[in-house]
Amino acid sequence: MSAVPTFTFLGPEGTFTEAALMQVPGAAHATRIPCTNVNTALDRVRAGAADAAMVPIENSVEGGVTATLDAIATGTELRIIREALVPIVFVIVARPGVEISDIKRISTHGHAWAQCRLWVEANIPNADYVPGSSTAAAAMGLLEDNAHYDAAICAPLVAAEQPGLNVLASNIGDNPDAVTRFILVSRPGPLPERTGADKTTVVVPLPEDHPGALMGILDQFASRGVNLSRIESRPTGQYLGQYFFSIDADGHISDARVADALAGLHRISPATRFLGSYARADKQAAVVAPHTSDASFAAAHAWVEAILKG
Amino acid sequence: MSAVPTFTFLGPEGTFTEAALMQVPGAAHATRIPCTNVNTALDRVRAGAADAAMVPIENSVEGGVTATLDAIATGTELRIIREALVPIVFVIVARPGVEISDIKRISTHGHAWAQCRLWVEANIPNADYVPGSSTAAAAMGLLEDNAHYDAAICAPLVAAEQPGLNVLASNIGDNPDAVTRFILVSRPGPLPERTGADKTTVVVPLPEDHPGALMGILDQFASRGVNLSRIESRPTGQYLGQYFFSIDADGHISDARVADALAGLHRISPATRFLGSYARADKQAAVVAPHTSDASFAAAHAWVEAILKG
Amino acid sequence: MSAVPTFTFLGPEGTFTEAALMQVPGAAHATRIPCTNVNTALDRVRAGAADAAMVPIENSVEGGVTATLDAIATGTELRIIREALVPIVFVIVARPGVEISDIKRISTHGHAWAQCRLWVEANIPNADYVPGSSTAAAAMGLLEDNAHYDAAICAPLVAAEQPGLNVLASNIGDNPDAVTRFILVSRPGPLPERTGADKTTVVVPLPEDHPGALMGILDQFASRGVNLSRIESRPTGQYLGQYFFSIDADGHISDARVADALAGLHRISPATRFLGSYARADKQAAVVAPHTSDASFAAAHAWVEAILKG
Amino acid sequence: MSAVPTFTFLGPEGTFTEAALMQVPGAAHATRIPCTNVNTALDRVRAGAADAAMVPIENSVEGGVTATLDAIATGTELRIIREALVPIVFVIVARPGVEISDIKRISTHGHAWAQCRLWVEANIPNADYVPGSSTAAAAMGLLEDNAHYDAAICAPLVAAEQPGLNVLASNIGDNPDAVTRFILVSRPGPLPERTGADKTTVVVPLPEDHPGALMGILDQFASRGVNLSRIESRPTGQYLGQYFFSIDADGHISDARVADALAGLHRISPATRFLGSYARADKQAAVVAPHTSDASFAAAHAWVEAILKG
Repeated sequence: MSAVPTFTFLGPEGTFTEAALMQVPGAAHATRIPCTNVNTALDRVRAGAADAAMVPIENSVEGGVTATLDAIATGTELRIIREALVPIVFVIVARPGVEISDIKRISTHGHAWAQCRLWVEANIPNADYVPGSSTAAAAMGLLEDNAHYDAAICAPLVAAEQPGLNVLASNIGDNPDAVTRFILVSRPGPLPERTGADKTTVVVPLPEDHPGALMGILDQFASRGVNLSRIESRPTGQYLGQYFFSIDADGHISDARVADALAGLHRISPATRFLGSYARADKQAAVVAPHTSDASFAAAHAWVEAILKG
Repeated sequence: MSAVPTFTFLGPEGTFTEAALMQVPGAAHATRIPCTNVNTALDRVRAGAADAAMVPIENSVEGGVTATLDAIATGTELRIIREALVPIVFVIVARPGVEISDIKRISTHGHAWAQCRLWVEANIPNADYVPGSSTAAAAMGLLEDNAHYDAAICAPLVAAEQPGLNVLASNIGDNPDAVTRFILVSRPGPLPERTGADKTTVVVPLPEDHPGALMGILDQFASRGVNLSRIESRPTGQYLGQYFFSIDADGHISDARVADALAGLHRISPATRFLGSYARADKQAAVVAPHTSDASFAAAHAWVEAILKG
Repeated sequence: MSAVPTFTFLGPEGTFTEAALMQVPGAAHATRIPCTNVNTALDRVRAGAADAAMVPIENSVEGGVTATLDAIATGTELRIIREALVPIVFVIVARPGVEISDIKRISTHGHAWAQCRLWVEANIPNADYVPGSSTAAAAMGLLEDNAHYDAAICAPLVAAEQPGLNVLASNIGDNPDAVTRFILVSRPGPLPERTGADKTTVVVPLPEDHPGALMGILDQFASRGVNLSRIESRPTGQYLGQYFFSIDADGHISDARVADALAGLHRISPATRFLGSYARADKQAAVVAPHTSDASFAAAHAWVEAILKG
Repeated sequence: MSAVPTFTFLGPEGTFTEAALMQVPGAAHATRIPCTNVNTALDRVRAGAADAAMVPIENSVEGGVTATLDAIATGTELRIIREALVPIVFVIVARPGVEISDIKRISTHGHAWAQCRLWVEANIPNADYVPGSSTAAAAMGLLEDNAHYDAAICAPLVAAEQPGLNVLASNIGDNPDAVTRFILVSRPGPLPERTGADKTTVVVPLPEDHPGALMGILDQFASRGVNLSRIESRPTGQYLGQYFFSIDADGHISDARVADALAGLHRISPATRFLGSYARADKQAAVVAPHTSDASFAAAHAWVEAILKG
């Protein structure tokens, strides 16, 4: 990266994504460019205009999940070099003088709306929903003259930084343990070092449509004792019934069992895409059975080589 | 159903969902109630206020996919009794007098926007996107006095029925073969009859988090020769890494191989939910291997019973 | 069985097989008929001339193993109703006056010879081997006038009952823990009761010759959590490369998981033959996972039935 | 091998095994040493006293099958370098003047006896069986003065070479298509060249006793599309229920799919023993799926290596 790195992120400022970016060492002093969608954030990295992009990948409130999965699965190759977990906490804000009992229309991102549904039904049952392109945009929109809604649901970060907004209620999310997972994505380069508590992300197109096709993919991991922490199917967008799978596997491609599983995937689905090996945010080390250790792979390889040499 | 049935559907009127509903025999003369979201459409059926609901389930432009998957996976049980396929064709509309070169802001549902992105970039590269809650709502909004956008992307149905809207371009979707799949959902009752070209939908919570857990689920189908036409993972919403799988399998629960696979699923994941067996819209009959035919199951069952009787 | 039951056994008298038969309650007072080979012993049961036959099935010294496997796999159906384990202890005998240093030729059954090979090489290295049709026949042959060998290896039982034979050395088997397993075989009738520590024996012809055929068979057991304590391949005798498998599985066909596995076997290999469910000699109870318990099968079956009833 | 090679074989002369040895180029002019059992034939090779040994491995009439399987599975490592198929044809012989109606006692090897049982029952129903250590030994024994039997069943080769024996009937085997497979075994050295129609033999101890252990072994082959032409379980001889598997797989260890499968076996069962890759006698080429070709393995390996290099 350059002396002062440049990061793009799914904006606007004040979203949970920016909170994730701030976890990256040096991000506070880096150039941080909010983008209106995941594709733009990634395309700037692809074009060399930014060093890396922070985008949501799992259980997001900002709509990034499937957009991100699809955006990194196609186009010029990119690499995940880091992950970040951010607890999801929602507040409801309004302009000074507005009380909860005054609220008739609420704006926020659709995913945030879904995650605060129980609170809204209990407290403002007759409120109408106005779609917003992000939680932060909904909050900032309240300050415009012709705002056609009375309140917004957003992250605490926005509310804290913006003097014209009153927090009417905090922690209004239906699931107090909600966490969103974000990934930092860069152009291909040297792999992050193996730490022993790593994750590898791949995209695997389903090669054929028969009862065992997906099992064939999963078996590449299972037969090498590689656990999967995430698997998501995504339509290829061409025809109904055609899928690719986005998979997070425990371990680093420098682990022999992971390298062997990836080689197996490549054979049965040659368009398999490697999206990166990187340290787990939770630092939880993988459990490795003796017969899937690096030593076991090395011994097996040496045994076969010795036989081949005669 | 009552003499004049009542259907809810994901509205507003003029969306692709209503087009799907119109494929149901009798729908033209039935009471059709548009709902603002999938949950409302389904809850009215649950409450007995409607006979059935038409909602999108796969590759939708109206945002129904994951909302539908989640809505039918939880809450009071419902049953899919029919599926409908609707070709997805987009038009861009504006008020009379507005030309393509005049357009600065376009509104539509986010999924429709994603599916017309190439056309927009090629023809109106500088247009800004204004999120709409549906394609039809975006189109109707153009007729309001304070419309803050110049054009909308919607289904041909809306444009055809609304005199104040001009179609500026047709077939602007990036994928000319796009199809959305919809399901008709009712309260549990007698199963639709087996036709020989059927589909069965189930929701299966992943019972444990180990390398073989998902394979154990898939093997229930594969070992009985039951093909899967759709599999989607969905987070349970409680914690990262907890999933349920929404699965469409070829065949009817009245087929012995499907019944046996479901029994197997129930054993390894007792919270498995049956969402219905119903005729395939494409009428494509399942291919059944001899050892998974009803006759084979009956013979095996009779053989074991005879031994048990001694 | 008749008031005084009749048992056949692989003879002659004094072999390990008779020792196994003596473990059966009532055998001491029953009619016991030694037969010269396994087929004869079984055919008498088939013909109704005997109630049951005791024959060796595993790790035998009397040559019964493959003969037994093949004999019960074909022909009129029979049922295993009991198993017996007999520790294998060998002695070497000769006529009075003969010392170990005098021995030039030793007779015994070929399997017994194989199991005492180390002792013979260490103690009588130059001895020649004379094949015998059984250990007991070899021992009794020493008493004939024209015996063309000097010593015999046999079971202690023969030596103890026969005054004209001297035991020159005891416990001469190479493996002091050797055990032979025998089975008591009768015509089909009421199944032995389930005890909770049972074994089920089946014969499964390999249905096709492809990489997964045997795995398909084994998966019927593995997917229901049924452990296998014995698996042996046997050529069908028609062509090279055609096999059937003789399998002992933990559990009783009255256990739902075993019944379900057998039904699965019957579907993929309809000529599968059930050879019996019977109590284990070692009384070791099977470990049953929750999802393979009778209760789990019953719940799954009830769930599917309830859906089918609508 | 030395200028004039030395071969041992399971004797005596005139058996089917010698017929197999005569198929080896140069065997006619080589030193051929008959041995009384498989172990002796192999031990001479191990000791360097012979270049190679011809022994039966499958469906033999000379008792070699399990003896051979066990003898090559343990002890100093040996390698199979060739296989030979010999059609099994039996004749019954007697001294001049003896007619079929005169025969009261017949000698032959036990396996030959088993394979002519139907003929004997139909033609000499009251004949008694006298065990012989080989078919040839039984035939030659007829020429001794004190022969205690009247006829012998043996291979045509013996009868043809021995003037004092009359052939009373030919082709008396119950299965006219019977074939025995033999292997030529030498000390480890350069592997036989890959021909495209090869076979690889391994011995795999079952690593653990659980429902999936054997499936784990078989999956190493199945997941690489490697067909198995022979699989036999053998007790280890230590305890009941402990097995090793003797396996013939299609292909040569120089085939990437076979090498990868063997490496997988070595990991889950480190005591796996490689017994050789050699040309198939029937010259039937293996069918290789695209994703298991050498090119596919090379591409997958190169892909992973490129990622690891960053």
